[in-house]
Amino acid sequence: MIQASIITIGDELLIGQVIDTNSAWIAQQLNAIGVPVKRRVAVGDTWDAIWEALDEEGKHSDIILITGGLGPTADDITKPLLCKYFNGKMVRDEKVLAHVKHLFEQVFRRPWIERNAQQADVPDTCTVLFNSVGTAPGMMFEKEGKVFISMPGVPFEMQTIMREHVLKLLPERFKMAHIAHRTLLTAGIGESFLAERIKDFEEKLPSNIKLAYLPSYGMVRLRLTDTGYDVDAIEKEINEQFAILQTLIPDVLVTNIDEPMETVVGKLLLSKKQTVGTAESCTGGYIAHLITSHAGSSGYFKGSVVSYDNDVKTDLLGVTNETLQTTGAVSEETVTQMVKGALQQLKTDYAVAVSGIMGPDGGSAEKPVGTVWVAVGNHKKITTQKLWFRYERKRNIELTAINALNLLRKFILENS
Amino acid sequence: MIQASIITIGDELLIGQVIDTNSAWIAQQLNAIGVPVKRRVAVGDTWDAIWEALDEEGKHSDIILITGGLGPTADDITKPLLCKYFNGKMVRDEKVLAHVKHLFEQVFRRPWIERNAQQADVPDTCTVLFNSVGTAPGMMFEKEGKVFISMPGVPFEMQTIMREHVLKLLPERFKMAHIAHRTLLTAGIGESFLAERIKDFEEKLPSNIKLAYLPSYGMVRLRLTDTGYDVDAIEKEINEQFAILQTLIPDVLVTNIDEPMETVVGKLLLSKKQTVGTAESCTGGYIAHLITSHAGSSGYFKGSVVSYDNDVKTDLLGVTNETLQTTGAVSEETVTQMVKGALQQLKTDYAVAVSGIMGPDGGSAEKPVGTVWVAVGNHKKITTQKLWFRYERKRNIELTAINALNLLRKFILENS
Repeated sequence: MIQASIITIGDELLIGQVIDTNSAWIAQQLNAIGVPVKRRVAVGDTWDAIWEALDEEGKHSDIILITGGLGPTADDITKPLLCKYFNGKMVRDEKVLAHVKHLFEQVFRRPWIERNAQQADVPDTCTVLFNSVGTAPGMMFEKEGKVFISMPGVPFEMQTIMREHVLKLLPERFKMAHIAHRTLLTAGIGESFLAERIKDFEEKLPSNIKLAYLPSYGMVRLRLTDTGYDVDAIEKEINEQFAILQTLIPDVLVTNIDEPMETVVGKLLLSKKQTVGTAESCTGGYIAHLITSHAGSSGYFKGSVVSYDNDVKTDLLGVTNETLQTTGAVSEETVTQMVKGALQQLKTDYAVAVSGIMGPDGGSAEKPVGTVWVAVGNHKKITTQKLWFRYERKRNIELTAINALNLLRKFILENS
Repeated sequence: MIQASIITIGDELLIGQVIDTNSAWIAQQLNAIGVPVKRRVAVGDTWDAIWEALDEEGKHSDIILITGGLGPTADDITKPLLCKYFNGKMVRDEKVLAHVKHLFEQVFRRPWIERNAQQADVPDTCTVLFNSVGTAPGMMFEKEGKVFISMPGVPFEMQTIMREHVLKLLPERFKMAHIAHRTLLTAGIGESFLAERIKDFEEKLPSNIKLAYLPSYGMVRLRLTDTGYDVDAIEKEINEQFAILQTLIPDVLVTNIDEPMETVVGKLLLSKKQTVGTAESCTGGYIAHLITSHAGSSGYFKGSVVSYDNDVKTDLLGVTNETLQTTGAVSEETVTQMVKGALQQLKTDYAVAVSGIMGPDGGSAEKPVGTVWVAVGNHKKITTQKLWFRYERKRNIELTAINALNLLRKFILENS
């Protein structure tokens, strides 16, 4: 079976200054067209490291996708290296040059400097993959039957070159396998217990189907993967197994699509033509951000009051000073009043409210860091939950948001 | 010089279902103690791929850190493989077993099942690195002078084992180099133009200092890196060069610390003992989230009104129906009124408001997708700016937030 390696180039990856999101995106796209990714490698901006990576990945895989190291500045050595590695000489591509000049003059509206013209220089042994949205072109090389494709590291440019060229070229060049994935999301059960419950199912799975457990945010995703050349047979087989799997865990199943919790909630609200708003203290707008990061969320999300300061809790959400003084901002009473305030102010069918201590400071013996109160409700009923997370600030915020959305999901299912 | 490789194990990395944040974190920590990372490799949950990666990285590096593949479920094959690779036999570690049982009985409060006991099985050729916050222990092996350390993939557990064991063990075992980084952030200038302005500086840099350009969110970070064994000489040299660099670009310099824009703004507000709030339409709470993701933000951030729906703009922020009808929600008038409403409702010294079209739908000829109006102001003055981003929804939201924060930063500097 055809396999791919992804090489990402850049010192910033090796000192941890930048998180590599390109590799995940590329891997998703390659899997979708039937190219499994065997390895992902990140190396620095040094000649030897890049050269070795090309040598090694050329042995491991048939398709080697390379990102990064193509910018206009002096820390980029990838292009000259590729020129030498593939025995070429550098030539100026007139179409690319015209495009780069156009971008500077018409789009960026910045003066032209000669350094920019170098973006149009390419090895004469490559096929240029035109970059319609940026200055650095993609380049495709062949060596001993292996295909090497170099793209800029800017995510938007890389993605455009992938969509406009790479994902079309590869299926013409190689015979692709069919890879089918099915993923479901569970909540309220640990990895080990889930494994116990579906042990028999797992043992009886056909050998070409893999089952993976993916824990995230206190939930566990289960993924089946089936690979082969007979598309219909693969699809039939995985659908059958996926249907069986779902019947084994109906009580903890959140969704049988690989989608985030906020999308599950969004679809539920859309189907009922209802709306939600949030009143957020400790999550500081993160729940609203999760919801609105998806197109179409204006169909069910009206807004949020981020009441980080207690004054905002009283002024905008009607939490009483008495409650804040007697039970504190992190309490069942406060989040209950926040839900009532949000329902009234934002004029929604449902509201969710959170207040907690995300750390690293602010905890006490009675309310340690990670203590969170969540409330969800409609105009008739309000449900509350106390949570306790033992992680660092960022993860506590994320876990609070996902758990609040899950509580909202269950509330909608039970009360609509 | 001692070098490290990071191997991350898991099919989820190769199908792009999960973004690898562990590698970046590990790389940061290793660099801080003087261990440069030569390569990062991600491989799937297959015997051959993991075995090959151990072989190869053992050749490349002196220290090989491995994460993932240690969970309690059947898709994890890493531990048996490590046992064989390092010629051990599996034994049950009683201290780990007692800890795992304690976690299940006292912390997770879930019934004990025999499968969990396997978490306490370790090869007898390893040194156990006790996992105080989870069930899967870290394991350290030595082979031909190289150190291999395996840790679970759950970020919090991996980080704990790194802090409590690995970062203490490595400096005892190896002679470390000193790596010094200095990073500054610029805004309002493109990579090529920045390179032109500091060309002479770059050419005169001592050969052991590297300069890197790191574009992000329409801004460019510049990073100097100096490596060697004489700590004082390295620090003196890089401080001198970093000081020179800053004098060359005072007009576009945002900060000379490697910190995000929201932290720059936060420090500025703290130093002036002033507060800010946000009124967010298109960013849906993301600006508030960025600000509140940092501990101590309650010292300068009071809250936010996320007015995704126009009703919330009128009801809570006092945007007039007339304005919404005549100029629309994405207009200079609307964001100006949003700032006024936020200042009044949230009782802050400054407010920032954004309204725009993030895509993929909702654009028009007059206001294409990516059109954003930003306003920042205090009780005396309001400044507005129109932006246009040509990316996908997620990136448009991020760019809007960072640009709004930068406008806020400049406003505070000019008007306080």
